[in-house]
Amino acid sequence: MAPPRLYLDWNATSPLHPNARDAALRALDLFGNPNSVHGEGRAVRAAIEHARRQVAALAGADPAHVIFTSGATEAANMVLTPEFRMGRTPLKVSQLYYSAVEHPAVREGGRFPKEQTAEIPVTEAGVVDLDALGASLAAHDKSAGLPMVAVMLVNNETGIVQPIAEVAKLVQAHGCLLVVDAVQAAGRLKLDINALGADFLIVSSHKIGGPKGAGALVTRGEVLMPRPLIHGGGQEKGHRSGTENSLAVIGFGAAAEAAMEFEARNEAISVLRDRLETGMRGAAPDVVIYGSEGQRVSNTTFFTLPGLKAETGQIAFDLEGVALSAGSACSSGKVGESHVLVAMGRDPKLGALRISLGFATTEEEIDKAISVFAKIAARRKPAGEAA
Amino acid sequence: MAPPRLYLDWNATSPLHPNARDAALRALDLFGNPNSVHGEGRAVRAAIEHARRQVAALAGADPAHVIFTSGATEAANMVLTPEFRMGRTPLKVSQLYYSAVEHPAVREGGRFPKEQTAEIPVTEAGVVDLDALGASLAAHDKSAGLPMVAVMLVNNETGIVQPIAEVAKLVQAHGCLLVVDAVQAAGRLKLDINALGADFLIVSSHKIGGPKGAGALVTRGEVLMPRPLIHGGGQEKGHRSGTENSLAVIGFGAAAEAAMEFEARNEAISVLRDRLETGMRGAAPDVVIYGSEGQRVSNTTFFTLPGLKAETGQIAFDLEGVALSAGSACSSGKVGESHVLVAMGRDPKLGALRISLGFATTEEEIDKAISVFAKIAARRKPAGEAA
Repeated sequence: MAPPRLYLDWNATSPLHPNARDAALRALDLFGNPNSVHGEGRAVRAAIEHARRQVAALAGADPAHVIFTSGATEAANMVLTPEFRMGRTPLKVSQLYYSAVEHPAVREGGRFPKEQTAEIPVTEAGVVDLDALGASLAAHDKSAGLPMVAVMLVNNETGIVQPIAEVAKLVQAHGCLLVVDAVQAAGRLKLDINALGADFLIVSSHKIGGPKGAGALVTRGEVLMPRPLIHGGGQEKGHRSGTENSLAVIGFGAAAEAAMEFEARNEAISVLRDRLETGMRGAAPDVVIYGSEGQRVSNTTFFTLPGLKAETGQIAFDLEGVALSAGSACSSGKVGESHVLVAMGRDPKLGALRISLGFATTEEEIDKAISVFAKIAARRKPAGEAA
Repeated sequence: MAPPRLYLDWNATSPLHPNARDAALRALDLFGNPNSVHGEGRAVRAAIEHARRQVAALAGADPAHVIFTSGATEAANMVLTPEFRMGRTPLKVSQLYYSAVEHPAVREGGRFPKEQTAEIPVTEAGVVDLDALGASLAAHDKSAGLPMVAVMLVNNETGIVQPIAEVAKLVQAHGCLLVVDAVQAAGRLKLDINALGADFLIVSSHKIGGPKGAGALVTRGEVLMPRPLIHGGGQEKGHRSGTENSLAVIGFGAAAEAAMEFEARNEAISVLRDRLETGMRGAAPDVVIYGSEGQRVSNTTFFTLPGLKAETGQIAFDLEGVALSAGSACSSGKVGESHVLVAMGRDPKLGALRISLGFATTEEEIDKAISVFAKIAARRKPAGEAA
């Protein structure tokens, strides 16, 4: 019999949280269309609105300011647009400034034409370069439209926390809109859209233990809104048409509620991650762990093992029964250079591997991961002869 | 104890087909990210590709030509765009011509500016006016771009089948793109994208017994493609980014496979619908049933009971334990005039009610529906004094 596998790729997607699984199971039989006015429809509507309150609580927002989408990527495409409205008045956004370590869903720029987007570099420590951001915003020509800034709260590959408070200060000084991708922060840091100074937050269900297929664009208010991306029946107060994905949304709500109790869990995960990194450094003192000097969330270890290509390493770990990833799992089958490593000024040739832990990770699993790591590290070719 | 309720609103959404429910249950624990290269990811990927083949078979298409979306509304917004590519060459579509009875997801025009859309009238029988369509296409100025025609195969409110073969002939004669919304046709008529002469078909999971949150844009080929609506990680060969909603997609596949065995089922449903309409006419000889003279799918009865407002009627039926709808269930809580009635030249003041049957509908339920109908019909106010 094959030994049980170790899943250490929680940043790519999380197994269902037990509460989310229960909620999804109940939702399987809650079959009405939430837009129908009959009893079957109203039952689903009530469950969706309950989920909206749960997601709002996670984001520190008003439930009226949660727009459910099919996921974070759709939410990003919805908010990253030159076309806004302030009440009924059209408002133009003329330029999107995003950090060089954003997720592709943001880096692709949504509905902005390429020439209306600009990348802001990050420092070697992997955090957005505040001087560069400030200079760009100071140079922004407001006569053409407002500037929009998109910076993630936690990077998906490295787990590095971005200085959103500093970003928000700059944004406020320059009268910009601030979009914060909180996908990897939810359930790991306290979220509060107002305290963060964000105009828009993006969250995802399947990264916090909910089903795939749901996400949300959370807004600070209801006055300043992007032009809808998906038009039709007028669901979500006209901001996002299409029959709501009730099962995923209901599961998302349950996962969001569970994700609010993150402090004790993160403490435990942090102990496991320290154990892991100590074990890794013991087995291979030359391992490079990114971001370990700065502020990281407690569950992520992003590393390069000299002499081992990340692609090869990923397969080696998989063969040993350990699921981890080489960078992010965001594009179909594509294993390209890590734009995050490049942005941090590191040599992207070998790439890097990501181990990410979650609520079900155990000490036993960590010890198994260390022993697999040691085995793979021991059979590396000497540096300079990467396989 | 309350008597069991009757669900007769299958066009709004279908309860899960048992096969789709089983598939969704299995998918609950298939938790990997389908874009991860490790074992957990590959298992989900394989299940998604299986579902793709099932949906392709339903549409008579190549699996490579199925793009999964979050639903039919998203698929419509994806394909209804002025921006296409023919291979690497940009191709402009300058005008969208849609029938007056299209679903709001099409009538809203997707990414076409309002002034680049035109509504084609329907006849009193509720079918698209081919002469008007032909005249519009003949007058189309191709120097500005290609024309695109969008006509649904089956109307969601009336169940009336549109003359797509005739539409396709006109489309071919004028060198247009043809988009066919097959949401209500799937599982009720045989679909074959090539035989229909369509360039693009739109299908939805939750209308055929699959979970909500999945749909597909099915394309005739891979050369002529719309500009993606959702950019990011490059999933679905770059046509639709965002982590795939594996649970819904896997359930959709199972529902699609079940929907292919529609002939025997439709025959049974047709017998039930005839029984229902005979009963209704017996109880209220003045009932107006729309589209009963022409070609309708076998499950839908769209009717007006003189002296009864549809809104009032819907509540009355709901209180009697019968779920049906006043028009379509496409927008949150909004009960407006039926654009379908208006398009057919009928007085929309009273509105109309829709009873729609599905695979689990029984003769006993139909008899119960007839008796509730008779009760409600009997207590109507005299015509002219609609409540």
